[in-house]
Amino acid sequence: MAQKLSTPKGTRDFLPAEVIKRNFIFNTIKEVFMLFGFQAIETPAMEDLSTLLGKYGEEGDKLLFKILNSGDYLSKLSNELLLSKDLNKITGEISGKGLRYDLTVPFARFVVQNQNEIVFPFRRYQIQPVWRADKPQKGRYREFFQCDADIIGSNSILNEAELAQIIDEVFNRLKIKVILKVNNRKILAGIAEIIGEKEKITDIMVSLDKIEKIGKDAVIRELAAKDISEGAIKKLEPLLLLKGSNESKLKQLENILKTSETGLNGLQEIEKFFGYTNAAKLKMKIEFDLTLARGLNYYTGAIFEVKAAGADIGSICGGGRYDNLTGIFGMPGVSGVGISFGAERIYDVLQQFKLFPKNSSENSKVLFVNFGTKEEAYCLPILKKVREKGINAEIYPDNAKIKKQMSYANKKEISFVILAGESEAASNTVTVRNMQTGEQQTINSEALPEALLKYLHGD
Amino acid sequence: MAQKLSTPKGTRDFLPAEVIKRNFIFNTIKEVFMLFGFQAIETPAMEDLSTLLGKYGEEGDKLLFKILNSGDYLSKLSNELLLSKDLNKITGEISGKGLRYDLTVPFARFVVQNQNEIVFPFRRYQIQPVWRADKPQKGRYREFFQCDADIIGSNSILNEAELAQIIDEVFNRLKIKVILKVNNRKILAGIAEIIGEKEKITDIMVSLDKIEKIGKDAVIRELAAKDISEGAIKKLEPLLLLKGSNESKLKQLENILKTSETGLNGLQEIEKFFGYTNAAKLKMKIEFDLTLARGLNYYTGAIFEVKAAGADIGSICGGGRYDNLTGIFGMPGVSGVGISFGAERIYDVLQQFKLFPKNSSENSKVLFVNFGTKEEAYCLPILKKVREKGINAEIYPDNAKIKKQMSYANKKEISFVILAGESEAASNTVTVRNMQTGEQQTINSEALPEALLKYLHGD
Repeated sequence: MAQKLSTPKGTRDFLPAEVIKRNFIFNTIKEVFMLFGFQAIETPAMEDLSTLLGKYGEEGDKLLFKILNSGDYLSKLSNELLLSKDLNKITGEISGKGLRYDLTVPFARFVVQNQNEIVFPFRRYQIQPVWRADKPQKGRYREFFQCDADIIGSNSILNEAELAQIIDEVFNRLKIKVILKVNNRKILAGIAEIIGEKEKITDIMVSLDKIEKIGKDAVIRELAAKDISEGAIKKLEPLLLLKGSNESKLKQLENILKTSETGLNGLQEIEKFFGYTNAAKLKMKIEFDLTLARGLNYYTGAIFEVKAAGADIGSICGGGRYDNLTGIFGMPGVSGVGISFGAERIYDVLQQFKLFPKNSSENSKVLFVNFGTKEEAYCLPILKKVREKGINAEIYPDNAKIKKQMSYANKKEISFVILAGESEAASNTVTVRNMQTGEQQTINSEALPEALLKYLHGD
Repeated sequence: MAQKLSTPKGTRDFLPAEVIKRNFIFNTIKEVFMLFGFQAIETPAMEDLSTLLGKYGEEGDKLLFKILNSGDYLSKLSNELLLSKDLNKITGEISGKGLRYDLTVPFARFVVQNQNEIVFPFRRYQIQPVWRADKPQKGRYREFFQCDADIIGSNSILNEAELAQIIDEVFNRLKIKVILKVNNRKILAGIAEIIGEKEKITDIMVSLDKIEKIGKDAVIRELAAKDISEGAIKKLEPLLLLKGSNESKLKQLENILKTSETGLNGLQEIEKFFGYTNAAKLKMKIEFDLTLARGLNYYTGAIFEVKAAGADIGSICGGGRYDNLTGIFGMPGVSGVGISFGAERIYDVLQQFKLFPKNSSENSKVLFVNFGTKEEAYCLPILKKVREKGINAEIYPDNAKIKKQMSYANKKEISFVILAGESEAASNTVTVRNMQTGEQQTINSEALPEALLKYLHGD
């Protein structure tokens, strides 16, 4: 009955070594979130479909994993409905819940539902998996983690600056060199206004967003195809190639946007943002990029995107300000700003640049070889003392061949093997073998815990 | 459009204070697992239904959350099939995946699938949510966490002893007083053999398991109703009331089981187990309980159950040895032993006895009051220095009324509020307010980070 076993398409098992690497990312991000006063929340994997549907566009609705109702979900369906094979109608009858598609919509639902128990401005973080029925491909999975931080209930630009500092701190700790690109939706709206295409702001943004991928000329062709007037495109064109320092770009824009209140407002916001981040002396470079648009419709102010220098991969973190996220759930007028780290892409970057730490505190550090019943009795109290020092340690459970036990230690990347056979027991000693150097030393058994602590700290 | 918002039936949101408490449990368990050399794995939330179905009995199959296939899952169904309303057949056609029901079956699938990358004996732990379409009731949820540790690929009883030590260590750290009840399926099998009802071992176990709930007489009536012979029940009856120390109970059984090889084998195993745990000087009491049977069919040797002293709640941890878990996936003859901690019940016990720690390192510790733009500029570099010491700290993002800002600090249970207005800025000082005592102290701004560290350590 040798069955062909696998996880469902687009999902993965994680072996111990991978879990350790992933935890390195999650723990780093989590620690920085907490350092900045953010608090964790968790929401259920499932949400009512009424919470999820219509929030991610038509395509998103299709990519939701929907859960069959329990019990005899078919009995209530009429024959007519069944024979109609009307996918939407029947799905609506037999499925009432779906798996979380992102953390943003559940967060909005959470804020509205728990508004009386939340302290505003609410600095929340959330690190949980999400599920999308996307076509799996390299680097794209059907189950993946998002790591989000948001401040909701305050429109101070200081919040944007705090998030920039978080980004800087996270990538410092991960030792990834990054550039933070920033823009502001109000500036883009101002430009659409100035060039006389206020109504087409979304079309313009969608095209702008592709400039890095397809180039300026293709973007212009696309805009023309979307019925943006020739005059408007002519006015827009020089803006796409703004050069110079952030200050000089903003200065040029100030002139262009002078008749657009919204545009000037966006400029002011971004200048305030730069005021904060310059004073904070961040290690990463921050670049004002007028072509940065980001797809998500709900952004209304600042937008962010982080690229890893030298990595051929999309953005590894992004976010922005939204003025009406909770409005969809009946709580209007709450402004917020947030960022989301992409753990899977960060994993790939760390792997590419060999930045994962060699040693992890999550590993087993010490193995006592098992020489049989008598020696076991000698070893177990010593093992207990080693563990009392907080050192991850174990004893091989069977009296197997030494070679097998050593190979176990090797494969598990255990740092020290303790050999304590008959002669060691007689002299109340243990032999410590350093598995990296092969060095062996025989020491008094009472001295072992401290000696191991010293060895491990010296790593 | 004030919609009535909620999470799906039987699922919950977790607010920051709850997440902190839950993390206290998860982190404690995780640290102890690692201390004993266990390694984390993770499996996907979804499994193919072929992996899950038939593993939890008929009832379990019904309680699986099944996921609708993507795309037009109806188009392939014939009208005949649709009109038949054959639940099983149609479900099989429109759903190929389900949510994880426990961690044990996915672990078995994982071991078989990844057998060439695993180091045996494999000490794995796994802390992940599971989903069951159970009727929600007090303390029973449709989404809950399991915390499992297993050693697979070794039949040494030392493994059982290691798990007992883990249980002892976890509940020590949580400060919960517990009793570990142990039994061995081989002893139960031996008894069934001796009383002449070898074939009815499962019936006997199911009834025995209820003795604490329904009492001896009800168990005997149940056994009779299950066609266990009168003579057999008569032989069984005194065994149900075995009294005395573990040693004396085992001694009595030795006599009774002397003609059953299986039974004596079980006795030997449990005696060996007690040999280890006595030597290890555990803090919890371990009680040999012949009526402990545990429902799960796959156990073949030792069985465990942990009760919290003085808590009116079922077991908070349980487990046992299984000889053929991976056999269902075509890899026979691999023996393992495991335990599972019930995080939700442990939460309730910690709550009942007020055992959650007052302070958590996950909390925000320091709030800088925001007095306006100028004062912000003075505070931000100081805030940065505080964070550089690893202290979770924040600044209120808006220049709101002091009362509002103080109330924010109070509700978030922040330990220290920093007041740095115009006069402090002029003298390069800050005023530190201890939010518990109300005490205020004005100190030099450079001295703040160290002073906070000292205050926080003195907590």
